[in-house]
Amino acid sequence: MTTPPAPREAAGRPEMGRLGSPGSGGCIMTVGVGVIGAGVMGADHARFLATSVAGAALVAVSDPDATRRNAVADAWGVAVRHAEAEALIADDNVEAVVIASPDPTHKAYTLAALAAGKPVLCEKPLATSVADCLDIVAHETAIGRRMIQVGFMRRFDPGYAAMKQALADDRLGAALMLHCIHRNMQAAPYTTSEGLNANSAVHEIDIARWLLGDEVSRALVVTPRASGLAAIRDPQILILTMTGGAVIDAEIFVNAQYGYDVRAELVCERGTVSLLPPSATLIREERREGILHGPDWRGRFADAYRIELQAWIDSLRSGKPAVHGASAYDGYAATAIAEAALKSLGSGLPVDVRLEPRPPLYGTGSG
Amino acid sequence: MTTPPAPREAAGRPEMGRLGSPGSGGCIMTVGVGVIGAGVMGADHARFLATSVAGAALVAVSDPDATRRNAVADAWGVAVRHAEAEALIADDNVEAVVIASPDPTHKAYTLAALAAGKPVLCEKPLATSVADCLDIVAHETAIGRRMIQVGFMRRFDPGYAAMKQALADDRLGAALMLHCIHRNMQAAPYTTSEGLNANSAVHEIDIARWLLGDEVSRALVVTPRASGLAAIRDPQILILTMTGGAVIDAEIFVNAQYGYDVRAELVCERGTVSLLPPSATLIREERREGILHGPDWRGRFADAYRIELQAWIDSLRSGKPAVHGASAYDGYAATAIAEAALKSLGSGLPVDVRLEPRPPLYGTGSG
Amino acid sequence: MTTPPAPREAAGRPEMGRLGSPGSGGCIMTVGVGVIGAGVMGADHARFLATSVAGAALVAVSDPDATRRNAVADAWGVAVRHAEAEALIADDNVEAVVIASPDPTHKAYTLAALAAGKPVLCEKPLATSVADCLDIVAHETAIGRRMIQVGFMRRFDPGYAAMKQALADDRLGAALMLHCIHRNMQAAPYTTSEGLNANSAVHEIDIARWLLGDEVSRALVVTPRASGLAAIRDPQILILTMTGGAVIDAEIFVNAQYGYDVRAELVCERGTVSLLPPSATLIREERREGILHGPDWRGRFADAYRIELQAWIDSLRSGKPAVHGASAYDGYAATAIAEAALKSLGSGLPVDVRLEPRPPLYGTGSG
Amino acid sequence: MTTPPAPREAAGRPEMGRLGSPGSGGCIMTVGVGVIGAGVMGADHARFLATSVAGAALVAVSDPDATRRNAVADAWGVAVRHAEAEALIADDNVEAVVIASPDPTHKAYTLAALAAGKPVLCEKPLATSVADCLDIVAHETAIGRRMIQVGFMRRFDPGYAAMKQALADDRLGAALMLHCIHRNMQAAPYTTSEGLNANSAVHEIDIARWLLGDEVSRALVVTPRASGLAAIRDPQILILTMTGGAVIDAEIFVNAQYGYDVRAELVCERGTVSLLPPSATLIREERREGILHGPDWRGRFADAYRIELQAWIDSLRSGKPAVHGASAYDGYAATAIAEAALKSLGSGLPVDVRLEPRPPLYGTGSG
Repeated sequence: MTTPPAPREAAGRPEMGRLGSPGSGGCIMTVGVGVIGAGVMGADHARFLATSVAGAALVAVSDPDATRRNAVADAWGVAVRHAEAEALIADDNVEAVVIASPDPTHKAYTLAALAAGKPVLCEKPLATSVADCLDIVAHETAIGRRMIQVGFMRRFDPGYAAMKQALADDRLGAALMLHCIHRNMQAAPYTTSEGLNANSAVHEIDIARWLLGDEVSRALVVTPRASGLAAIRDPQILILTMTGGAVIDAEIFVNAQYGYDVRAELVCERGTVSLLPPSATLIREERREGILHGPDWRGRFADAYRIELQAWIDSLRSGKPAVHGASAYDGYAATAIAEAALKSLGSGLPVDVRLEPRPPLYGTGSG
Repeated sequence: MTTPPAPREAAGRPEMGRLGSPGSGGCIMTVGVGVIGAGVMGADHARFLATSVAGAALVAVSDPDATRRNAVADAWGVAVRHAEAEALIADDNVEAVVIASPDPTHKAYTLAALAAGKPVLCEKPLATSVADCLDIVAHETAIGRRMIQVGFMRRFDPGYAAMKQALADDRLGAALMLHCIHRNMQAAPYTTSEGLNANSAVHEIDIARWLLGDEVSRALVVTPRASGLAAIRDPQILILTMTGGAVIDAEIFVNAQYGYDVRAELVCERGTVSLLPPSATLIREERREGILHGPDWRGRFADAYRIELQAWIDSLRSGKPAVHGASAYDGYAATAIAEAALKSLGSGLPVDVRLEPRPPLYGTGSG
Repeated sequence: MTTPPAPREAAGRPEMGRLGSPGSGGCIMTVGVGVIGAGVMGADHARFLATSVAGAALVAVSDPDATRRNAVADAWGVAVRHAEAEALIADDNVEAVVIASPDPTHKAYTLAALAAGKPVLCEKPLATSVADCLDIVAHETAIGRRMIQVGFMRRFDPGYAAMKQALADDRLGAALMLHCIHRNMQAAPYTTSEGLNANSAVHEIDIARWLLGDEVSRALVVTPRASGLAAIRDPQILILTMTGGAVIDAEIFVNAQYGYDVRAELVCERGTVSLLPPSATLIREERREGILHGPDWRGRFADAYRIELQAWIDSLRSGKPAVHGASAYDGYAATAIAEAALKSLGSGLPVDVRLEPRPPLYGTGSG
Repeated sequence: MTTPPAPREAAGRPEMGRLGSPGSGGCIMTVGVGVIGAGVMGADHARFLATSVAGAALVAVSDPDATRRNAVADAWGVAVRHAEAEALIADDNVEAVVIASPDPTHKAYTLAALAAGKPVLCEKPLATSVADCLDIVAHETAIGRRMIQVGFMRRFDPGYAAMKQALADDRLGAALMLHCIHRNMQAAPYTTSEGLNANSAVHEIDIARWLLGDEVSRALVVTPRASGLAAIRDPQILILTMTGGAVIDAEIFVNAQYGYDVRAELVCERGTVSLLPPSATLIREERREGILHGPDWRGRFADAYRIELQAWIDSLRSGKPAVHGASAYDGYAATAIAEAALKSLGSGLPVDVRLEPRPPLYGTGSG
């Protein structure tokens, strides 16, 4: 049975609202989650919540498109369905909200959930402009406790997690560079040269901040000749300099044709750690020996999405923010840095990044 | 809230008891699981059930050792604790049972759970003798529905699953050979030359049957010179011939020193599929570039255990046996084939395997 | 200028005839080599001798087929051409002979070269029967110095050499097992189930003896179901037990379709060493990431052939046998062990290997 | 016997002096090579020439240090030894010269060899200043035939060669980016922040020009925080833009501690090609599975040096420049581009590269 609303509003709670707590009488509580958006991302979140996350219950789905909405709801036996996100947020069955609707709607739905006192996991980006991101941060800061996690799922990928652990162990000395590769097979038709940064590079931006526990101070975009198979300036190389001096170079190539491929090598003073592609098998056939790349991020980051959702649900049940979850401030920072990168794309020159100070609600580190 | 006992006994249910079904009033039901045994394996199962399996609730733990029992129960906030497994099985909070106690107890606890009408996930081996395994099969056959899953977790490992899928796709033609490697760092002190087969090779035996969907017809054990670091005849090479003619060779080396390492290559008519070690990162340090092996199976097969438990819980909620779960008959077959291998170890000659016929309850395939 | 015949016959020379020695007047001497056979293997040897081996001069080519003979001779500007091998052997330009003609001719040409006092590099097999091999050994023993190197080129492959070095360093403890894979794309049409051992497995036999520095005491052939793409009993698994107890299992699969692939893993008490496929690059394209396998042995073992020839030429110039070169006795042993394997293929039972004692001329080790 | 001087001066010869031609009477001619400098590089060149290059004869060694000079000469039985390079160049035994002495001497010895009519393989850099490089180019242009090959050996590495071949096959579409890694364990004590470019990055500069068959138009150096284990600004990231728009980013890290490691990934429109580390074996020991990196370039590029020397000797014997050999103009270009990188290191800004036009003697391409 889902928890009653009362405990959600209880005084003296820890920083994050504790949901799904054990009830009386040995009853095992789950957090009732509503998913806004039944597109590719929403359908995936719904699937994970329904099948693979302990302590979660998928209780509602919303999408203006009835076909998509019903397809997802039917797949997992979800009775509560809404055309409007606002109705889902207001629904008493819904204790927490996943926002996977189109980017321009993220801000409004996030603020609506905050107003309803319901925690949010918002897919990236938090909002489509720096001002809107700051607006959300201001709302959460006014509430005074962490209600929002932004869906930078890579932080929960076992590979990036192992990298972060290697740094924490000080096994390899200080981090000096991070070489990143981000390749898609083909960009969505509406992708622009500018959007490539906001939509794809933003993952590299967030992971660099989180991994290094440091802030970005400068951004530079270098543009090689564009692929003849791309209608935009693709690939691009994004170079970030951190406050502490580490440098990140990230190839963003969204029409790379051969497969979805994300790689990273963290270069430290005494050694390096690289991501391995998460293939469980090696195939030998037709003169080749190797692995297969998936067509998109879903296979590559399936574990990351599942673990992200589990960490979010765990945080709701424990009342403490997910240790590695991206905050609203992280969502703001990623958008602000992507904006700086966009300026560099236009000018060809390095652009200094000046972020608003981190409110105390968000602690002291980037990680 | 855990489901009331009534539905468990309802007539007209599907083959497997359906547990944790949706209750009235939007209540999300979970399956209340009791874990017997709080050693390494039991603690791991408890952890997965408490943290990573959708629809499961860890409701009880039993172990004669109060320290171990309480350590596991405290870790996950489990109130119900029993010294005796029989008490756990009888406990009304417990709807389904995981048996992770010492091997000689498996039979008694499995039969007790069957008598109580509670489904069982029993760690391998199902029982320590062929006769005992057949006894359990007879009990389950008499009940007339599948109540038992044996913990051959490798069937749920993403690597083996991908191998099986490659065969199903007929991508590479028919399977001809399976080369297996099974290495532990050091054997437990009580391991004998004979037990090496029963305890370690049994995994290779089960995976061969499942992967190839075929039965073993002959077993031969070849013994190389023993390692000077082993007190027993270690390594051994187990060679199985399937009814359809495919041959499995499996190196079992339980004092291999360098790490826990399980590998397999399935050789087909037009190509091969091999397991890759599931490392998320590559490390370069101290003149080396490579991956790290864990000390034991827990890291290597963490995903397999989690997915196995999820599939078991899903099967309990749906009332249908887990598609890839090992049945009591599979548990019997593995023990019977290991016994044939043991004879070959003694004689140095191939030993024919003669299995009891598969009762209709267990379908027609080995897989 | 090639060395004059006189020094070849000089008394007091070291064990092996010293050829190509520095002449007077600063003249740099090369060894004049004649190649018998202008097929695939002969053409390759000719190419290496003409282009990549220090101190060698390709001076003559023989082949009954004028087209092939002239093609090879023209390619490297070789003036001396013979239809008959005997004429080449007798030719004064020829100081040393490479025999790469069909297997049944090996014995006669080897004995002819011995009679002419000219050292021989004979492609494997040394001869097509055990008796013929022993006959050659008897001739060489009567001469009293090493004149023959058998073309087991794998001993010069950098991968196998690194394996042997690892054993010599005692880095990993004693050798316990050697797992071998030998795959061709398609067998030549004339290949028989029996010939598969003599022609392919013989490489595994030789490398096991050399690598382990030990002799084979027993052979067993296990036959999986045959590939539907093979007209013979293919694949086969050859299992050799060494005198010291180490066990070799070698998959021989000459219709493996996907590529030429030779692998080996040497398993020692504290770790293992495996061959890596010698690819200089990794390719990502069409959803795949990996390496390419060549169609046959020429790419895979190009370095081994080159280094083998260099070692042979060096041995001729220094007058000492190539440290890792296979002797006539090694050629005999490989043929004798392949014959034992053939008996096992017929009977399905292990066959004991009984070799003639190693004459003192061949030292004390197998390696 | 080495060729007499007369043919070297013959009129009507092909572009490059033909040496080591077949003499009369079936004599096999070798090119008599003298090596200037008996340090690490000189000793290596001497070894390859003496042991592994067809058609070459190591006939003389010079070094002011008698101990080093004699050590190398003794190792290979070389009688002719000179303290002074000039004496070696003048020596009648010497037909061609390898210059492996300290960088500041390269220009003088190269010009001396040109004056003596003897072809040169000069270790990189061709000279230590742009002006000196141009001076050498002017001398060679005045002679009117190619006498100089610069020792950019990577062009002969099988990995880079396979990359170039992949481009030639148009298998992957046009080249867009080249990601490079160049790591040494520790820099020589005299290495400066500025010299890091001239001495190490120069290899990346040359390989980019050769691989892409294009010229560099701009250079930018980005400096991450320096390693605490380096006394200089190390690492550095060199970013080159080619005339055709392709971009090269190259990490140069000469105090990387863990091993010598050179990598590259060529990114094309439809796929990528990467270098694989040339390890013949994989080792499993002490919880690790992987390969070993050598301490320096000698193991990594042993094949490249051998093949480079073979190509050079072949070119001398055929009278045609080595197809992939770096010319004096390439040597000039690398130095000029490194100088531009040095300016960028000082200013932090991109620096345009303006090269002198390529004289007709050097053909039309960079490759």
